[in-house]
Amino acid sequence: MPGSSFGRIFRVTTFGESHGRAIGCIIEGMPPNIPLVEEDIQGDLDRRRPGQSEVATPRQETDTVEILSGVFDGLTMGPSIALLIRNKDSRPSAYEDLKHKFRPGHADYSYLVKYGIRDWRGSGRASGRETATRVAAGAVAKKLLAAHGITVTGYVSELAGLKAERLEMDTIESNIVRCPDPDKVDEMIARVIAARDAGDSVGGVVEVRVSGMKAGLGDPVFDKLEARLAYGIMSIGSVKGFEVGIGFACKDMNGSEFNDPFTIDETGKVRTTTNNSGGILGGISTGEDVVVRAAIRPPASIAKKQQTVNWDKKAEDIEVHGRHDPSIAPRAVPVLEAMVAMTIADCLLIQDVYLRERETFGTLHDAAAIFDDEL
Amino acid sequence: MPGSSFGRIFRVTTFGESHGRAIGCIIEGMPPNIPLVEEDIQGDLDRRRPGQSEVATPRQETDTVEILSGVFDGLTMGPSIALLIRNKDSRPSAYEDLKHKFRPGHADYSYLVKYGIRDWRGSGRASGRETATRVAAGAVAKKLLAAHGITVTGYVSELAGLKAERLEMDTIESNIVRCPDPDKVDEMIARVIAARDAGDSVGGVVEVRVSGMKAGLGDPVFDKLEARLAYGIMSIGSVKGFEVGIGFACKDMNGSEFNDPFTIDETGKVRTTTNNSGGILGGISTGEDVVVRAAIRPPASIAKKQQTVNWDKKAEDIEVHGRHDPSIAPRAVPVLEAMVAMTIADCLLIQDVYLRERETFGTLHDAAAIFDDEL
Amino acid sequence: MPGSSFGRIFRVTTFGESHGRAIGCIIEGMPPNIPLVEEDIQGDLDRRRPGQSEVATPRQETDTVEILSGVFDGLTMGPSIALLIRNKDSRPSAYEDLKHKFRPGHADYSYLVKYGIRDWRGSGRASGRETATRVAAGAVAKKLLAAHGITVTGYVSELAGLKAERLEMDTIESNIVRCPDPDKVDEMIARVIAARDAGDSVGGVVEVRVSGMKAGLGDPVFDKLEARLAYGIMSIGSVKGFEVGIGFACKDMNGSEFNDPFTIDETGKVRTTTNNSGGILGGISTGEDVVVRAAIRPPASIAKKQQTVNWDKKAEDIEVHGRHDPSIAPRAVPVLEAMVAMTIADCLLIQDVYLRERETFGTLHDAAAIFDDEL
Amino acid sequence: MPGSSFGRIFRVTTFGESHGRAIGCIIEGMPPNIPLVEEDIQGDLDRRRPGQSEVATPRQETDTVEILSGVFDGLTMGPSIALLIRNKDSRPSAYEDLKHKFRPGHADYSYLVKYGIRDWRGSGRASGRETATRVAAGAVAKKLLAAHGITVTGYVSELAGLKAERLEMDTIESNIVRCPDPDKVDEMIARVIAARDAGDSVGGVVEVRVSGMKAGLGDPVFDKLEARLAYGIMSIGSVKGFEVGIGFACKDMNGSEFNDPFTIDETGKVRTTTNNSGGILGGISTGEDVVVRAAIRPPASIAKKQQTVNWDKKAEDIEVHGRHDPSIAPRAVPVLEAMVAMTIADCLLIQDVYLRERETFGTLHDAAAIFDDEL
Repeated sequence: MPGSSFGRIFRVTTFGESHGRAIGCIIEGMPPNIPLVEEDIQGDLDRRRPGQSEVATPRQETDTVEILSGVFDGLTMGPSIALLIRNKDSRPSAYEDLKHKFRPGHADYSYLVKYGIRDWRGSGRASGRETATRVAAGAVAKKLLAAHGITVTGYVSELAGLKAERLEMDTIESNIVRCPDPDKVDEMIARVIAARDAGDSVGGVVEVRVSGMKAGLGDPVFDKLEARLAYGIMSIGSVKGFEVGIGFACKDMNGSEFNDPFTIDETGKVRTTTNNSGGILGGISTGEDVVVRAAIRPPASIAKKQQTVNWDKKAEDIEVHGRHDPSIAPRAVPVLEAMVAMTIADCLLIQDVYLRERETFGTLHDAAAIFDDEL
Repeated sequence: MPGSSFGRIFRVTTFGESHGRAIGCIIEGMPPNIPLVEEDIQGDLDRRRPGQSEVATPRQETDTVEILSGVFDGLTMGPSIALLIRNKDSRPSAYEDLKHKFRPGHADYSYLVKYGIRDWRGSGRASGRETATRVAAGAVAKKLLAAHGITVTGYVSELAGLKAERLEMDTIESNIVRCPDPDKVDEMIARVIAARDAGDSVGGVVEVRVSGMKAGLGDPVFDKLEARLAYGIMSIGSVKGFEVGIGFACKDMNGSEFNDPFTIDETGKVRTTTNNSGGILGGISTGEDVVVRAAIRPPASIAKKQQTVNWDKKAEDIEVHGRHDPSIAPRAVPVLEAMVAMTIADCLLIQDVYLRERETFGTLHDAAAIFDDEL
Repeated sequence: MPGSSFGRIFRVTTFGESHGRAIGCIIEGMPPNIPLVEEDIQGDLDRRRPGQSEVATPRQETDTVEILSGVFDGLTMGPSIALLIRNKDSRPSAYEDLKHKFRPGHADYSYLVKYGIRDWRGSGRASGRETATRVAAGAVAKKLLAAHGITVTGYVSELAGLKAERLEMDTIESNIVRCPDPDKVDEMIARVIAARDAGDSVGGVVEVRVSGMKAGLGDPVFDKLEARLAYGIMSIGSVKGFEVGIGFACKDMNGSEFNDPFTIDETGKVRTTTNNSGGILGGISTGEDVVVRAAIRPPASIAKKQQTVNWDKKAEDIEVHGRHDPSIAPRAVPVLEAMVAMTIADCLLIQDVYLRERETFGTLHDAAAIFDDEL
Repeated sequence: MPGSSFGRIFRVTTFGESHGRAIGCIIEGMPPNIPLVEEDIQGDLDRRRPGQSEVATPRQETDTVEILSGVFDGLTMGPSIALLIRNKDSRPSAYEDLKHKFRPGHADYSYLVKYGIRDWRGSGRASGRETATRVAAGAVAKKLLAAHGITVTGYVSELAGLKAERLEMDTIESNIVRCPDPDKVDEMIARVIAARDAGDSVGGVVEVRVSGMKAGLGDPVFDKLEARLAYGIMSIGSVKGFEVGIGFACKDMNGSEFNDPFTIDETGKVRTTTNNSGGILGGISTGEDVVVRAAIRPPASIAKKQQTVNWDKKAEDIEVHGRHDPSIAPRAVPVLEAMVAMTIADCLLIQDVYLRERETFGTLHDAAAIFDDEL
């Protein structure tokens, strides 16, 4: 149980250390008869992989995925799907010097205290490298969602103190910082490079938008849709904050401003005229776009001299050289998408139970049936 | 499975609708031989209960808790503990008029679409009333934590656009808005009353601080401590955002500002000189205070006229009169504390496994043992 | 987590000690819009309750159930359902004398060692009294199954060394030992009474048959249908053995005898001409009746003098007087039915996911579709 | 969630089809600092692997295991451990002829109906080949148990109608049927060979004995130790019955015969003079040996002509030629051991929580402490 599994029906279990032999995952709960080949997964892995641009770490990993099980003649079969990615460009020796020091902002100290042992080869299991397995599993979830008309799109809405003002979705993947505002791209890149050259790093914000949402996803009380989304997103190693809908801005609003008024659109569907709630009411999706946001801290590995302590509890200085990201937000985009996709897929499958049983038991109120086209 | 359970070892399952017969919960995983009587639980219930002040709903519930099982001669026994609270001041009839309309900001629409049936008596299961059972379970978790020297304290750090500047912990419970800054209390109260009198409501922020933390709590990858905390807190009905440590402010920082430098304190313990990470590194606690924050939206029930639709998909106006909170943040304080306490208790019990096995297997590095006093 | 929950989607969590205030349970995952009133549950509780006949304990409990939540206007709503049964005829004082002795065959010793505390009031949580909450939850599961045409019927197939040779289903509930062979009833009863009068008790076998089964229930590998059934049934306090289909008799058979040949029946459905496998192949139901069997040990509480030790690790004699069952099998019948019903209901709801998704993704082989009427 | 995971703290998730690329598993919850190398696992895999003797299938698989993660410098680290076994001797083409027929006793029909797709390459996920991953995970569990002084030993107690009368534990692995009674070995082998030569197969019984047990393992109500053991063992593909302790024989016993009297042994420990209950009382271990037994059906794949139907719902004859086991029991021994080891390991880790908390909260009764040496 402890830590490497996520989800209830659509359930993913991952493994692997940054400089170990391989990373990978097992996916349970993916329904059968869905076309799935390695190319479906490789695309998102390429969006996340290191070495893709000058704002990312230069570590060279192709992150080539192999489907080991669960797919036959190009179709999923129902039982567990295993995905494997071999590590190709490990350099554990690069970490020898740091072996006995706790890098500030890293898990070195907390892992050693927790487990009484620590993989010092580049953070081991605590490395961001594990997120490649999330992306792989997320790509599988996206295949399921796509067939239901649901799309998950992420982008960098803030980076290094600059904020995207426009949202041009089709420009996101055309720039290396995955910013949807073409006017901000160059300055964002410049700030990242400048930080890197100064031996430092920068933070940012990633936003994810889910379109084509079904109403009725999420569960009451503890498993509200936003709770499951926060659980998934806050489990990504660099995330320090989470928002749904208008998020923290709600604190200064009145109820009359915040509440999203209901209306009927031209097609006869129930809609809200605003979306402050981010497509979720009472923990259950309404069919509006689900919008979430994550604060991404500046990467912990920086060349600048920092103060720390070592295994002998002595003070020491530390400089973390090597192959590191000056900003994480651009590469975090597919990782956040993956966590959102896995969460929505899981909720969709759970909702299938109610929808299927509805065929047997119907709905109480005749009125309820008139909303069936929102499902 | 769907929705009413929280936790892994320390696991709580709740039930109850706002205007049904009773609410309550079953707690599994509470260790044996811990003193527990109803008074231990009643205190926090009183802090949350309706009717406690002029900034809260006037509904009168004593929220008297009965321990039905799991305790013998004043001590926990190990097996499941059941807690029961009878509803005393239900008034379902007050909701008859709203039965066929979807209140904006409420779960009326999403529940009806999801389930094909809806308890229209004051939100039913989606009502904030369910949080009383969280508070009861949280009080039990606090008993466990207290014996380990861990305390969980919440307060309103922002309300109706005003921010607490000082943190005087011993003043929190002496004012009805649970604000730790005595200079801001009167103005906060005035703003809440003004909003209420205008038929409106206000938002705010609640912060929770965990002191006396053990290092080593939390699990890697998906079950990071902040992920579990976010899961619990974002499942509270009015929360739209979550932060750990410095939270969203990290987006504009450099790594050299954000990283918390390690040092050795006068007692020989490893500490950090700042706490931007909120007491968690790599998902595992370091022993520093854990600090989390939640954005609380303005309550959805307001007397002001709003636009909505009804069960026949026709546009209608709506005014939600009755007994409602003009602000949720003050009463949300014990609810957030409860979710934090349950989460920390659960992580503490899981960590017991590693600590107990350490007695058999030891630690790899001799060095690791010198940190055992942080556990 | 530890011990009081069962199931995945249809999930039941129970509480209560034999001589505590109350027992009860929370049921999650019951779909909405299913008619449910207390009478639906009371019937099975009456079949299990103490004091019902001369072959049962004379303890007088009406086991009156109260639905506390989850049902509105006579229909389930989807969220958790809570059921409460108050203990009415507790007599803790009857156990004072046995407080410091370990009753052979009981959990006195193992509970004390495990927890370092023990509820000596009639076995506390380890009492068979907890099975009333299973029966209550099972009655709810049966409501779901009934709507799908599935019925669960149990009976005593062996008692006190006598075996039922005929299976007349409609006679089961007309005799106090729940034996389906009218010719064996009197002798069975005589043997139970004789054992009781000798200060002793007798064992037996309960068989449960599920008719109207759907094909496709159960999951591969670890969650095979027979594994889930065994899990549920072996968790009943007096069960020492479990069989599915022909059970242990398979050990002396050849494959050519054991394998159930496939055939097509007059309605065009795939059937097997024998049912040695008990309606399950590869862990998945085939649509044939599921048949399981449990060995029920003789009750541990007997008046005869036995050898034991006390809390001071001294040898002592013990005689367990009071209100006890001379045989458990007849009252165990509704308990086994409940565990089977809960397990089948859970598997049915999980299978809903695949059936619903089939509407989107179809089946690979055209051939597969021709079996859809078996689902 | 559906089907490929087992355990709560010590949790194993498996993947792989019989004639796919690879099989393997992820193990969560294994404590850190335990020595683990591939040789620790390979031994049990060799005991299970095909091609090991004339009573087993001639398929040639070395079942060479690779540890992909979770181990560093020969020690476990705490996070997830991944194990990989490549399939080397797949021959999917051997199944082409059977593609459209349902083999009696196999999962062909039930999988097709459940999923709407079927891997016809030798049962795919439903093949006994998946049990290799159980054995690998079980070997890891055994490493944990061994350090706690617990050993798990299985053997064939009945085969082809012959029953072992003696239990000479050190002879088990010296004969190809893993029978502990040297006098029965030759005749058992002869009967298996005779059945095979007749195009048929034989059933048997495997017994597993756990020595060095700790008292206190297992949880109350649903997660009784015998329930978890039954769950694990009944999930093995050929098992049709399960017994703990004296098993089904209890049905004909009186309570005075069945109850195991307590006594104090020469070392001052609490013991029972008999072990009809199989080392478990009230679902919790007492410290006596845990003894369980499984009925193993004759393998379904037989050369003899059988009656069946095909995908077009037409009657057909079938003969299953190829590489099959004439008896499963001998190779099932390490598989049963694995399920028992995983289950005991999981219960041991959960019990760690109570034992660790006992250091904080003590025990209620002074008396309880005198049993601490049984833990």
